[in-house]
Amino acid sequence: MSAATIAPSAPIARRDASEKLTGAIKYASDMQFPGMLHARLVTSPYAAARIVSIDTEAAKALPGVVAVYTAADLTLKGMESGSRRLNFLARDRVVFDGQPVAVVLADTIEQATDGAAAVVAEYEALPVVIDPLLGMRADAPTVRETPASGAEEANVHAAVGGGDEKPQEKLPDNVTSNIHFNRGDVAKGFAEADMVVENTYKVNYVHQGYIEPQTCTIVPDPISGGVTVYASTQAYFQVRDEIARSLGLDSSQVRVLPIQPGGAFGAKYVLLDTFVASLVAKTGRAVQLVYTRSEEFHAANPSPSTVIEVKLGGKKDGTLTALEARVIFDTGAYSGSALGIGCLLLGGYYKFENLDIKGYEVLTNKPGVGAYRAPGAPQASFAIESAMDELAAALGVDPLDLRIQNAVQEGDLWPDGNPWPRIGLRECLERLRDHPLWQRRGSLGPNEGIGVGAGGWPGGRGPAAAACRMDPGGNLTITTGVADLTGQSTTFAMIAAEAFGMDASKVRVVHGDTETAPHSPGSGGSQITYTVGKAVLEAAREARTQAFAIAATHLEASPDDMEIVDGEIRVKGAPENKVSLEQIYTLSTSKYGPIYTRGTSAQQVIAAGFAAHMAHVHVDPDTGEVTVKEYVAAQDVGHALNPPLVEGQILGGAVQGLGFALYEQLVHDDNGQLLTGSFMDYTLPKAEQSPPIEVIMVEVPTLDGPFGARIVGEPPIIPGAGTIGNAIKSATGKRMTEAPMIPPKVAAVLQG
Amino acid sequence: MSAATIAPSAPIARRDASEKLTGAIKYASDMQFPGMLHARLVTSPYAAARIVSIDTEAAKALPGVVAVYTAADLTLKGMESGSRRLNFLARDRVVFDGQPVAVVLADTIEQATDGAAAVVAEYEALPVVIDPLLGMRADAPTVRETPASGAEEANVHAAVGGGDEKPQEKLPDNVTSNIHFNRGDVAKGFAEADMVVENTYKVNYVHQGYIEPQTCTIVPDPISGGVTVYASTQAYFQVRDEIARSLGLDSSQVRVLPIQPGGAFGAKYVLLDTFVASLVAKTGRAVQLVYTRSEEFHAANPSPSTVIEVKLGGKKDGTLTALEARVIFDTGAYSGSALGIGCLLLGGYYKFENLDIKGYEVLTNKPGVGAYRAPGAPQASFAIESAMDELAAALGVDPLDLRIQNAVQEGDLWPDGNPWPRIGLRECLERLRDHPLWQRRGSLGPNEGIGVGAGGWPGGRGPAAAACRMDPGGNLTITTGVADLTGQSTTFAMIAAEAFGMDASKVRVVHGDTETAPHSPGSGGSQITYTVGKAVLEAAREARTQAFAIAATHLEASPDDMEIVDGEIRVKGAPENKVSLEQIYTLSTSKYGPIYTRGTSAQQVIAAGFAAHMAHVHVDPDTGEVTVKEYVAAQDVGHALNPPLVEGQILGGAVQGLGFALYEQLVHDDNGQLLTGSFMDYTLPKAEQSPPIEVIMVEVPTLDGPFGARIVGEPPIIPGAGTIGNAIKSATGKRMTEAPMIPPKVAAVLQG
Repeated sequence: MSAATIAPSAPIARRDASEKLTGAIKYASDMQFPGMLHARLVTSPYAAARIVSIDTEAAKALPGVVAVYTAADLTLKGMESGSRRLNFLARDRVVFDGQPVAVVLADTIEQATDGAAAVVAEYEALPVVIDPLLGMRADAPTVRETPASGAEEANVHAAVGGGDEKPQEKLPDNVTSNIHFNRGDVAKGFAEADMVVENTYKVNYVHQGYIEPQTCTIVPDPISGGVTVYASTQAYFQVRDEIARSLGLDSSQVRVLPIQPGGAFGAKYVLLDTFVASLVAKTGRAVQLVYTRSEEFHAANPSPSTVIEVKLGGKKDGTLTALEARVIFDTGAYSGSALGIGCLLLGGYYKFENLDIKGYEVLTNKPGVGAYRAPGAPQASFAIESAMDELAAALGVDPLDLRIQNAVQEGDLWPDGNPWPRIGLRECLERLRDHPLWQRRGSLGPNEGIGVGAGGWPGGRGPAAAACRMDPGGNLTITTGVADLTGQSTTFAMIAAEAFGMDASKVRVVHGDTETAPHSPGSGGSQITYTVGKAVLEAAREARTQAFAIAATHLEASPDDMEIVDGEIRVKGAPENKVSLEQIYTLSTSKYGPIYTRGTSAQQVIAAGFAAHMAHVHVDPDTGEVTVKEYVAAQDVGHALNPPLVEGQILGGAVQGLGFALYEQLVHDDNGQLLTGSFMDYTLPKAEQSPPIEVIMVEVPTLDGPFGARIVGEPPIIPGAGTIGNAIKSATGKRMTEAPMIPPKVAAVLQG
Repeated sequence: MSAATIAPSAPIARRDASEKLTGAIKYASDMQFPGMLHARLVTSPYAAARIVSIDTEAAKALPGVVAVYTAADLTLKGMESGSRRLNFLARDRVVFDGQPVAVVLADTIEQATDGAAAVVAEYEALPVVIDPLLGMRADAPTVRETPASGAEEANVHAAVGGGDEKPQEKLPDNVTSNIHFNRGDVAKGFAEADMVVENTYKVNYVHQGYIEPQTCTIVPDPISGGVTVYASTQAYFQVRDEIARSLGLDSSQVRVLPIQPGGAFGAKYVLLDTFVASLVAKTGRAVQLVYTRSEEFHAANPSPSTVIEVKLGGKKDGTLTALEARVIFDTGAYSGSALGIGCLLLGGYYKFENLDIKGYEVLTNKPGVGAYRAPGAPQASFAIESAMDELAAALGVDPLDLRIQNAVQEGDLWPDGNPWPRIGLRECLERLRDHPLWQRRGSLGPNEGIGVGAGGWPGGRGPAAAACRMDPGGNLTITTGVADLTGQSTTFAMIAAEAFGMDASKVRVVHGDTETAPHSPGSGGSQITYTVGKAVLEAAREARTQAFAIAATHLEASPDDMEIVDGEIRVKGAPENKVSLEQIYTLSTSKYGPIYTRGTSAQQVIAAGFAAHMAHVHVDPDTGEVTVKEYVAAQDVGHALNPPLVEGQILGGAVQGLGFALYEQLVHDDNGQLLTGSFMDYTLPKAEQSPPIEVIMVEVPTLDGPFGARIVGEPPIIPGAGTIGNAIKSATGKRMTEAPMIPPKVAAVLQG
């Protein structure tokens, strides 16, 4: 860690705080246009059914109703026949509870709602597949007639790196993908082990819990034939390209405006957008669709449930001898889960000479799944971190020491043989080992315990570009095509200011629309600071070079002798020979040429981020209620450019991890009916359920990130369930194997 | 002219034609916002008066009227006390007929109009100055108490180059600026002359005649404190900066959207914008002001009237021995006319060893003047071209030969001693000499004649920038900050396509707003193709370089061995070793880094353009009506990138020149009352009054323009009045000395 390459960390408040706190910000559903039609969906009450008939006549006769469409009425191009987007409205067969079967377009949302209520659909119920283990059996009912390959949805995972999901063996109909990683000889490994532990760990369907529902508004341009899109998305360019393909347009005819999503967490790439585009193409009018909260829970793209069987062997000296696992991802009715990365991470956190991991993606009659902050990783971490604690107990070694001894480091291999770059897992674990709370674990109250858990995320490295322009006063404007989810604009300002040599208050960051903005990857995979931030850095450095060139000509000195001090470019050693940045702007636009630069990045190495968490819990032996009394989140952030924002991301992720561990689940009954269709039934952790969280920022800098920064967003959600399960074990002696660990389940385990 | 540096000229239709012809385009006044206030002005019926009182109570009581303001209510920062913008609403004293004295803001334009009618203003009439020659007298009434220096308005002329307007002698109160150019010894020159001619030439106030009136809509952002501006302007960045200054904001808080003006011709830099901004600051609400046509004629910024006294001497061998001139620009009530450039051009078209030119800018009680396509040049050309014909006749030499012999060429000097760069005046004149119409001048019908005239314009060279992005399919998007007046987008597409090596249909050109767009000079001074076009060229060439670098890595070959053929990059000599541009896009955004480039230009040399026109007229000896039967417009365009667009600009300019010559004038009576306040009274040449015009494109390429292109827009308006005056002389033997040469004036000259 060379001090010269690291920028000072200076706290700056998020610039978008004011407009968000005051409610002044305009979200996609705030957009209203003359003549715009409101869409309301008619949804299926069955999780599996054949559509017998849909009678739209009564609805069409209602005042204000302009049109009622079923799937057959709409044209969507360039999609596979079984893909979810093509079947946004079910064709002939319904495959999950709440799947839309028709849409009503009306002048007002109230008229559209009345219209939807007047549509009469008849169904013939079909057998339902809910449990993925049953769904894998050869005699299971077939969830869909034409399973998609998953290629379409897989792009949301492209940002995470790794994971080859090509089918490799003859599979039952409902198994859409499998994967197999093998290294060494697991039989020999288990034979050499002093102890072997084995268990099965389950995580349920979880919704990403964003406040703003999925929404999309599209306005057509009758002259150009193009459309303008106001979408709640974290990937403007992907929305552009997929709408263009679905309408048969050139991407230049689709303009996506830089609307900020009201929460996303991986769920907002492309869900409604191509469907809404087809309505616009059909009607020639602007159309807005806003999911209701019920539709959110029934028919969005939540996090998959998983079943992970783990067998782990080790020696008394702490050597891990073998890992064997069978990983099942319940992907709902459409392929596209994070099976590959889940399997890679399961065997990728610790050093295994021998491993064998088999993964299967299975269709069930639930909504298709999407990404949720580190998709697949909380599930994998819950399994491996529970197993590591069990093994440590069996071997009689300290669970943190076992982890530290075996934690992967730079050069250690993933299950697929790829090496990890420089990472900070070990450093995070060491910070927990040295933490006072860990030292206190022998002196806790009754029914209390302390557990640890870890996890990491590879992070995306999508190529990116940025522009930098000098403005009046000598200020800078940075332009990117980023959807700002977590205050990236503020961080970009700091990066540019540091690179140029000015105060961050002099740097404005704006996000252009897809018509003019530099290309950006979607705001997923925790990558934006690492990829776009590097492009911003390069653009700002080049702007400094150009400013120095103008100053050198103006001052009749060499560009190499320049320095920036207090908004002035001076000749080193002759500070009276100077020109202000304000003058540089005037000179550039009147004589020398505008200062206007660009930077691009194409990161070749991932900036993987690791987190290690520790929880102090109390478990009520009667009710099974788990209270988190203290929580410590250590995370390698490379370099914290803006510590309050980094801490905020870690806090938010940690609380979402506690949601996975203790509260959140989408529950479908045996008929596939969703039982948790509102925030009354679906439990997000609220402030009173969030413990005091101590954040420890570990800084193991990357070589290529701006000033050493690495990914931050995804790691903090990963260790929660494993950490809590281990703490419950510590408090009660009982092992929880299913998340969320809600009181009835905990009580059932405690009581037998 | 190296063939290798010149792009093929390929006609492409203007891309904005469809939306303009169908009426689909949205102009600034089409913008409507919730809660927006409509502004209506209360204007003075006096050209000079003291405001005694303004009673707004009755207006304020009307339904829908939200506010009524006079100048004292509004705050405008950073302006000189006498400036027009600060006094958009008259303070205490009215200085021209139709000057606004109050503004009514209401929910609808009808309510605002009713409100304006209910405002009662009392005035005390003051003495009026209408004739600038009278206004220059020491005993003349003072037009204003605090004449501005003209610095503020002078920026509209910055683009034209040249002209130092600092006061140099003790001047009467109403003379706001003077200038003096002197070379050699004019007394000696006249003494050596064989013949000397002398006369005074006048040109009247002319309105630019755009179809869309001046308009501005500004929407405030209550959170940021900034504003978004929808203005009919040709200079987005200037509007941004001047509104920011007037409100005391940073320029980053003012966002000017790239609305296309509905005609501008130099009149639309900043007229209403700072005033509307002050209304927004006062009310906190969106405000729209659209000039009525009457306000356009009364209170916009038309072209000045001029009085030019010319004395010209020459020898029988065609040598010009001396030029002496006194140039008076009637600038209306505010300084800022094109006096300097007018004087420079008067003595800059021909070689004079001896010259003495004195220029004066004089205030009168008329609206302040603005730029109109080659400001000052039609006036100067009318004077010098009339004088050249008179001298040719006096010397008995051919008027075209006299011009060709004396036409300035590269290295010849302006009156201020600066040299002309490579120009094509002589080449244009030679094309007229060789034209069949000129050969027919001895065999015309009765009352018919043929005249020639010439003129040129230096052209702007404002530094500019542009961005180039590769898009899906391998297409390009070019972004600039240009207000597209004349199809520049289409030409930029051609330039980028040629530079990159693809078809122009693959290049989209968009204009960003001032938040993200590359800096651009205003679309004036004929400079956009020369300045921004060069930046576009550089950006596209760099994109080609980046694409070649990716292709070389991908194909394992040297970038130097690449070529582009039919949308593919191929290894020269191994055409099967290739990668499509579509693949290059995919590779760039997934692996190598987005192709995203920028170009800037800072032209050091002007790309001056010259035109020489010839008219065949018939003059009705009884009515004085002049009918143009044939018209030839030869112009050096450097290189015609898109011949139909270049021809269109020449045709439009030539017709506007005929407007100057024969039809157009704003007439103020002795009290300063405008007599021509509508298109019923102000005569724009219509199609039936426009003769068949033959366009001859002469191509003397520039060194620095894209593919040799030079300025086009302004030159064709310049020679009209001189050409027509000389044709009338040819037809009738009588010299017209005042434009427009309307029938009553022609008849008066013919008959006395």
